[in-house]
Amino acid sequence: MRAVWLENQILSIREGIPKPEPAKNEALVKVRWAGICGTDLEMVKGYYPFKGIPGHEFVGEIIQAPAAPQRIGQRVVGDINIACGKCSDCLAARQHHCKDRRVLGIKNCNGAFAEYLCLPLQNMIPVPETVSDDAAVFAEPLAAALQIQQQIQIGGTNRVLVIGAGRLGQLIAQSLTTVAGQLTVVARYQSQQVILTAHDIAWIRENDIRQSEFDIVIEATGSAAGFIMANQAVRPRGTIVLKSTYKDVDAEKWPLYLSSLVVDEITLVGSRCGPISAALAQLEEKRVNPSSLIAKRYSLNDAVAAFQHAATPGVLKVLIQIAS
Amino acid sequence: MRAVWLENQILSIREGIPKPEPAKNEALVKVRWAGICGTDLEMVKGYYPFKGIPGHEFVGEIIQAPAAPQRIGQRVVGDINIACGKCSDCLAARQHHCKDRRVLGIKNCNGAFAEYLCLPLQNMIPVPETVSDDAAVFAEPLAAALQIQQQIQIGGTNRVLVIGAGRLGQLIAQSLTTVAGQLTVVARYQSQQVILTAHDIAWIRENDIRQSEFDIVIEATGSAAGFIMANQAVRPRGTIVLKSTYKDVDAEKWPLYLSSLVVDEITLVGSRCGPISAALAQLEEKRVNPSSLIAKRYSLNDAVAAFQHAATPGVLKVLIQIAS
Repeated sequence: MRAVWLENQILSIREGIPKPEPAKNEALVKVRWAGICGTDLEMVKGYYPFKGIPGHEFVGEIIQAPAAPQRIGQRVVGDINIACGKCSDCLAARQHHCKDRRVLGIKNCNGAFAEYLCLPLQNMIPVPETVSDDAAVFAEPLAAALQIQQQIQIGGTNRVLVIGAGRLGQLIAQSLTTVAGQLTVVARYQSQQVILTAHDIAWIRENDIRQSEFDIVIEATGSAAGFIMANQAVRPRGTIVLKSTYKDVDAEKWPLYLSSLVVDEITLVGSRCGPISAALAQLEEKRVNPSSLIAKRYSLNDAVAAFQHAATPGVLKVLIQIAS
Repeated sequence: MRAVWLENQILSIREGIPKPEPAKNEALVKVRWAGICGTDLEMVKGYYPFKGIPGHEFVGEIIQAPAAPQRIGQRVVGDINIACGKCSDCLAARQHHCKDRRVLGIKNCNGAFAEYLCLPLQNMIPVPETVSDDAAVFAEPLAAALQIQQQIQIGGTNRVLVIGAGRLGQLIAQSLTTVAGQLTVVARYQSQQVILTAHDIAWIRENDIRQSEFDIVIEATGSAAGFIMANQAVRPRGTIVLKSTYKDVDAEKWPLYLSSLVVDEITLVGSRCGPISAALAQLEEKRVNPSSLIAKRYSLNDAVAAFQHAATPGVLKVLIQIAS
């Protein structure tokens, strides 16, 4: 089969990769669309030493399922964490934190920028009929956005600031419009501001952030500058959610002042993958409308150009069409 | 009056300091005992550019109270944060985070290593008769220990690790014995281990910490080594409480890996002052017994030697007797 191949931080389109064989508990999926995520771009920059097929945001169709033939033909999205099911984390309902986990397109598992992929049956969630492919391909990042609400309570009395209006920042903002008492997004690029305005979401520029004004600040830039802003914007006893891909290589650059975390009693919450079913429900109820975030579509053959485009500052979601 | 004086990081005993004059809403307290805290020692090292009388752990007697003469003779401890009562933080019941706050012996307010001190009447909490001076002088640090339980829920299913068995670590441990499902303290010095054993609290050495074993880790050393241990000991989706005095000057040394906070979805909680009344209640109910932590007592004249003693690694609470 044809797929995007990442090796030594170099991307290529490769032909003749063997089509994956589903194990008994797995299904083979014919991928229709896959989205490029910030983590994919960081992996190309060396965030994680991955060798293989990247990609973890997809919608596709089950075409083979040894243990569940009735599921053939189902349109699905996937939970990307493949857990062992036996370790202490799995038994404590923290499958996303299984120490032996493989992660689709990220860790020990080929991903979605390919004609076919394999995932365990239990990781495949059927897409409701009324949810388009264009919306379904956002299920995985939307789940990540919704994970914030699994971790902390956000309600009508909360003033929430989202720092960063990129791919994930926009989804986070949309997911919070009916939840947060007051929602503001820090948006740097006009293309991002236009989309926020279209969704009736208030935005400000970096320089207009007022200090200690927000109960909850969600850092969605992955940059040291964003982290500094978050620390300045949050009020005493407030919460900062870290919702991006941060690079250890920059650890020495993170200006962490533990004394200010203690003196101001700030809570810092790391946040990663979320509940895919909840994301599909939000898409079905049209509470989130991600299609406005699509910047451009590329064919699999042009995937390298697609990555280059996605890496341009201010560009939102770039999709790769793999099959129709 | 006589007092300890801190200026340019140099401690001295000074005579002839004017006795403070209570404002209308304040009371004048004759200090009986004052305790030396880690923050006092950090201030001598330059943690905060304080000039004046340090000291914020005390028990004393009200001897003058213009607006409440009926309180004269009362034995009291104090909430050390003096809030303006008008700002947005005060109105949101975050008086401890008032931006204009003065803090006894720490910020814009002379402290307790003196014959007399002044505090607003509302900051003075009467000490129950059955609580000895030796116990009451621990009310302030015990309140700080109890603040943890105001911020996060700790219950019978939680495995809790306290890193550091110093002055504060011991109080935290004692306050959690009937709360945490499983409690372990990392204790470096034999003197600390002996006290923990006497209180039936399990302790381990640093090298015996097992990775990802604890739901909640309380860092009470204020050191980079302790912070690293905390990150290693906490399980995915666990909580690290920062409960010490951290120095900004060491910021570049804090090995903060934001990526691991995100990937493991760790919550980091800064924790500072706590509820004095709750601390007095615990002392009254003998749920915490701090007197075993007293390492030595000094007179006010020997306060500089007392500080030197308190700064010796492994030494627990050093008290200064100011009046009997």
